[in-house]
Amino acid sequence: MTGIYLDHCATTPVRPEVLKEMLPFLRGGFGNPSSIHAHGRAAKGAVDTAREKAAALIGANPGEILFTSGGTESDNLAIRGIAEACSGRGRHIVTSAIEHPAVLNTCRALERQGFRVTYVPVDPQGLVDPDRVAQSLGADTVLVSIMHGNNEIGTIEPIEEIGRETRSRGITFHTDAVQTAGKIPVDVGRLSADLLSFSSHKINGPQGIGALYVRSGVTISPLLTGGRQENGLRAGTENVPAIAGFGKACELAAQDIPSRMELMGSLRDLLRRRLLEACPDLRVNGHPQHRLPHILSVSIGGIPAEDIVRDLDRQGLEISAGSACTAGKVKVSHVVEALGLPPDIAQGTVRFSVGLGSTRKEIIGFAVIYAATIEKLKVMRELEGSLGGRRCV
Amino acid sequence: MTGIYLDHCATTPVRPEVLKEMLPFLRGGFGNPSSIHAHGRAAKGAVDTAREKAAALIGANPGEILFTSGGTESDNLAIRGIAEACSGRGRHIVTSAIEHPAVLNTCRALERQGFRVTYVPVDPQGLVDPDRVAQSLGADTVLVSIMHGNNEIGTIEPIEEIGRETRSRGITFHTDAVQTAGKIPVDVGRLSADLLSFSSHKINGPQGIGALYVRSGVTISPLLTGGRQENGLRAGTENVPAIAGFGKACELAAQDIPSRMELMGSLRDLLRRRLLEACPDLRVNGHPQHRLPHILSVSIGGIPAEDIVRDLDRQGLEISAGSACTAGKVKVSHVVEALGLPPDIAQGTVRFSVGLGSTRKEIIGFAVIYAATIEKLKVMRELEGSLGGRRCV
Repeated sequence: MTGIYLDHCATTPVRPEVLKEMLPFLRGGFGNPSSIHAHGRAAKGAVDTAREKAAALIGANPGEILFTSGGTESDNLAIRGIAEACSGRGRHIVTSAIEHPAVLNTCRALERQGFRVTYVPVDPQGLVDPDRVAQSLGADTVLVSIMHGNNEIGTIEPIEEIGRETRSRGITFHTDAVQTAGKIPVDVGRLSADLLSFSSHKINGPQGIGALYVRSGVTISPLLTGGRQENGLRAGTENVPAIAGFGKACELAAQDIPSRMELMGSLRDLLRRRLLEACPDLRVNGHPQHRLPHILSVSIGGIPAEDIVRDLDRQGLEISAGSACTAGKVKVSHVVEALGLPPDIAQGTVRFSVGLGSTRKEIIGFAVIYAATIEKLKVMRELEGSLGGRRCV
Repeated sequence: MTGIYLDHCATTPVRPEVLKEMLPFLRGGFGNPSSIHAHGRAAKGAVDTAREKAAALIGANPGEILFTSGGTESDNLAIRGIAEACSGRGRHIVTSAIEHPAVLNTCRALERQGFRVTYVPVDPQGLVDPDRVAQSLGADTVLVSIMHGNNEIGTIEPIEEIGRETRSRGITFHTDAVQTAGKIPVDVGRLSADLLSFSSHKINGPQGIGALYVRSGVTISPLLTGGRQENGLRAGTENVPAIAGFGKACELAAQDIPSRMELMGSLRDLLRRRLLEACPDLRVNGHPQHRLPHILSVSIGGIPAEDIVRDLDRQGLEISAGSACTAGKVKVSHVVEALGLPPDIAQGTVRFSVGLGSTRKEIIGFAVIYAATIEKLKVMRELEGSLGGRRCV
């Protein structure tokens, strides 16, 4: 496919080095790590090596890494695993209003099972206030789950402060680091994280694989029961090719984080500058300093995001909407909603995310097309308005 | 790797046609099916196509197929999904003593949550008696889960009869078809199955992907919550390359089931014949007629299976043990145990499983080496016995 892909937060291309690591296991070197024969041992060796690399990316020990089928399973395992293991001690969970659905909807499912959940709000820049988190903790709080970096607006949360507080009070702390591990430095020790979710396909590894860091000494209940894989905490034959690829992706991501942060940040800033020059009424979302280098979220009044995304797609430009058009009604994402923007502006929120392969030339071209598209859509809407209609494209 | 691989029940090599189907998504054609732009739509299209192929393999409609991370997740989703959805109606589950650990350990986990589970025993050939199942059903029974074909001894269970009974009584029926779908004809209608688990890496597809058939009208609760993927029943970004590969594997498996059954059965029979000629004291396990074509389970007294597996492995021959040697004590598998063999014979149970690439020449050579190995191990044990020791090799 040709065009400009600025949707690296949704999924990323697999790096050739990663595919190379996977191919032996998709060819003759197949094996089940539970088998004690040669094919089995080779598969187990690959899993062990990948576990070391995944651990190294976040400053953990290999024994603290559980492989899962992805970030969503990691989040579910962390939250449901603690809820089940600790329900005798208490049934209160603290999270934020802007978590990924894998966290939010899991918390909501636990509410239906009798848990009490506090959803800490964010400020207009998407920042969670550590004091609000601290104030919400009680004797029955068994888990705090606050994401490291937000996937829609890029705000980086004050995880270290929150982690210090939970650690000092002996409350388990989980952070969803799906958008940060491999993008910015992540160290489970510095973050005081007890549980940390991360994913492969957001860092140029294959889809269908992720990991949960479980700090040594923290007890969780398994979500998938069956065989004794992953220390009895995640049953099911290991996905060897994907694990091998994920390990390689972790290794590569760990190698050049500072230089990649600089490159991604400069592309993001260039895009931001060019967009603001062309569309001065654009609003930039997220925190101006505490933010991920690869994400830019902007809002514009009067044009639903889905119209923008679909129109750009027809021109070969791929981005994500911060809202979805369902049956003619525009639904703003919970993250954008939590920022407290006026509804008309909230509806016009889109996300650009740069990544491997993004270039200055692409960014410059993209900004021009984006501005022209906004102009066109504005005119179309004015025409439509005068005709009395409004439709989802 | 060279040698003879007779462990196709553990995992199978990926067919080149399957890898070919996966590669585009591991190269430029990556995409998140939830994205509405071109990359996303292409990924969604691949998932839709694979869903049709997976459905066709088992006589289902595409809308009745949920993709999971594999057989273990499918079993967990079926059992936990019904348990949660139906716990208001009743808390009794019926299963068999020889299910896969993904079923058995999930039932045990539910017992700890207040469910009552009946484990129906099997006869010495591993057959579940449908009358015993029927007798165990009560007003509070919400689920019956009986496997289609056993993974250790190959016995095919009388699923049609069990399915008719559960259907007539309005009780949800799940069957683990991980060892049968793609190996023998499987039709969810004929089996009266409401839920059916199957897996990719057992049929020459990639690891880390499987499916659960959920009959239209059957309500289950999700195990993984988050995004709205898989009709809201299985959150998480779809594993597009693996799904595409699994779909291809289903398509290929569906094409030539009768001829493959004949080929596998003839290889299995050849192996059986040659082994019995060389070792007349071998006991063949499983049902003589109701059995899968690709599995042969045999037991021999006086030699722990793990010794046999390890010794054969050193000679390049790969099979599985029906028992595991842990800290010097031999633990017989729950399946072999359920057959009621004398302990000394039960400990010497191994499984051979043929598959794609298995040849008559391999089988003939294998039987010779196996017989010689048994002879050698017998002599070694006699020597060890005279020295008063016994160790796990």
